[in-house]
Amino acid sequence: MTWEARMTTTTSEFDADTEVEQLSEDHYRARLSERWCNPTGATNGGYLLGVCLRALQARLPFPDPLAVSAFYLRPGLPGSAELNTELVRAGRRMATGEVRLAQGGKEVIRVVSTFSELTERPDGKELGSMPQLPPPEECPAQPDAARAPETTMAGRIEYRYPSLPGWMSGNPSGRSTDAFWMRFADGRDADPLSLPSLVDSAAPVIFDLGMPGSSTVELTAHLRARPAPGWLACKVSTQHMTGGYHEEDFEIWDSTGVLVAQSRQLAIFLE
Amino acid sequence: MTWEARMTTTTSEFDADTEVEQLSEDHYRARLSERWCNPTGATNGGYLLGVCLRALQARLPFPDPLAVSAFYLRPGLPGSAELNTELVRAGRRMATGEVRLAQGGKEVIRVVSTFSELTERPDGKELGSMPQLPPPEECPAQPDAARAPETTMAGRIEYRYPSLPGWMSGNPSGRSTDAFWMRFADGRDADPLSLPSLVDSAAPVIFDLGMPGSSTVELTAHLRARPAPGWLACKVSTQHMTGGYHEEDFEIWDSTGVLVAQSRQLAIFLE
Repeated sequence: MTWEARMTTTTSEFDADTEVEQLSEDHYRARLSERWCNPTGATNGGYLLGVCLRALQARLPFPDPLAVSAFYLRPGLPGSAELNTELVRAGRRMATGEVRLAQGGKEVIRVVSTFSELTERPDGKELGSMPQLPPPEECPAQPDAARAPETTMAGRIEYRYPSLPGWMSGNPSGRSTDAFWMRFADGRDADPLSLPSLVDSAAPVIFDLGMPGSSTVELTAHLRARPAPGWLACKVSTQHMTGGYHEEDFEIWDSTGVLVAQSRQLAIFLE
Repeated sequence: MTWEARMTTTTSEFDADTEVEQLSEDHYRARLSERWCNPTGATNGGYLLGVCLRALQARLPFPDPLAVSAFYLRPGLPGSAELNTELVRAGRRMATGEVRLAQGGKEVIRVVSTFSELTERPDGKELGSMPQLPPPEECPAQPDAARAPETTMAGRIEYRYPSLPGWMSGNPSGRSTDAFWMRFADGRDADPLSLPSLVDSAAPVIFDLGMPGSSTVELTAHLRARPAPGWLACKVSTQHMTGGYHEEDFEIWDSTGVLVAQSRQLAIFLE
């Protein structure tokens, strides 16, 4: 297994907090950390997904998530969690598995994912383009005052916006798309395992449309490449806020201009 | 169950060919028809998904798919198929289930879906817009000569393009997005159950980029409304053909200008 050589002994926050303990071939245990909470006090959906993918990575014969779909069934909370995995199909180029994370016997999130082995510089034809952003060091950081103290995950991720979204100062700007830089605050570089978490780690763009918060029903992420080290350029947009739901599309481009992940989630507006 | 009143006794092709026979609470049987085959002779992925959702609809306490994710594991072929369903969680406003379709004991497609009850005219804020198309009767139909005889599903669906894609006459036009009308050829109106099939029922736009065919790895569809009767306005686009994969985004707007479904699939290029 060549990919085992890539696994490091780092104790980054993300790696420490997504650790899973294998109890049997398909059964894992994890402790959800209180360091990745949303303003509601529930654990962030991207973080929950990261824990699930750690278990699947241990179970499947390929290292990198290629396609991931997560259904959010109940809020996750800091504390212990049980994970059940299933190897659905292993082929020559990819393998598909399922994982169900439960707390207190109740299923919180169900994830199906196809894993493969990604390269750093995929060839092909790219018609899209990286968001045009000033260098991260020229972009202001989000002021601490804009964060609710319950939002512990804001301390795990750093963002750099060319201009801060209006909602952070109480004046939603009406923008339905935005672009910014993102990275782990502790300096851990992004990798395929963490990208599906990162696509759900920024404040939703609907805040800048003056809309209330929302809760993810389903999130899909498709990965294309192993990200190069450094800041990630992100593009987020929402177009359709109808029927009580909205989508959020998210792209992550690495520092060399390669699209590494794109995602879409469907979320239900909180009443 | 108010929604049962809506189910009709129609014998449309789609309804007849997606019929499932319930053997026990979670176990169903179907016969995949030879009327929905791709150029390869395999059953179309959208049609497979339709059969799966028929079983889930029978199993879940809500009538309409809201969020659907399908992982394609092996090609489906005309003939008998077994379906196993699972009620994952039923709440007050939505319910989530899973269904696995197998042929000869081998799993072909795994689907997780949240069902709810959709309305015809959802309120909210729509920032997108319906594709601007001439009326369907002013658009040319696809000539029969452009279809491979194996592509039986081309007889199930009608398309009307404002101008026919170049690949149909052997000259890919280089377009990465396209818009056109679509409907069932036998006059059956689209409903939420058939929309996840319809998003995967048109020729891929990559043909107009001169790219080879591809095979779906994962497809996600999000639904917003029950479509009004009549033609459906569709928008398709592909931006990222990298690493051996491409995405295809698909939108369906009903005849009154309501976005009823959006989807994205990740597909692997055939070598």
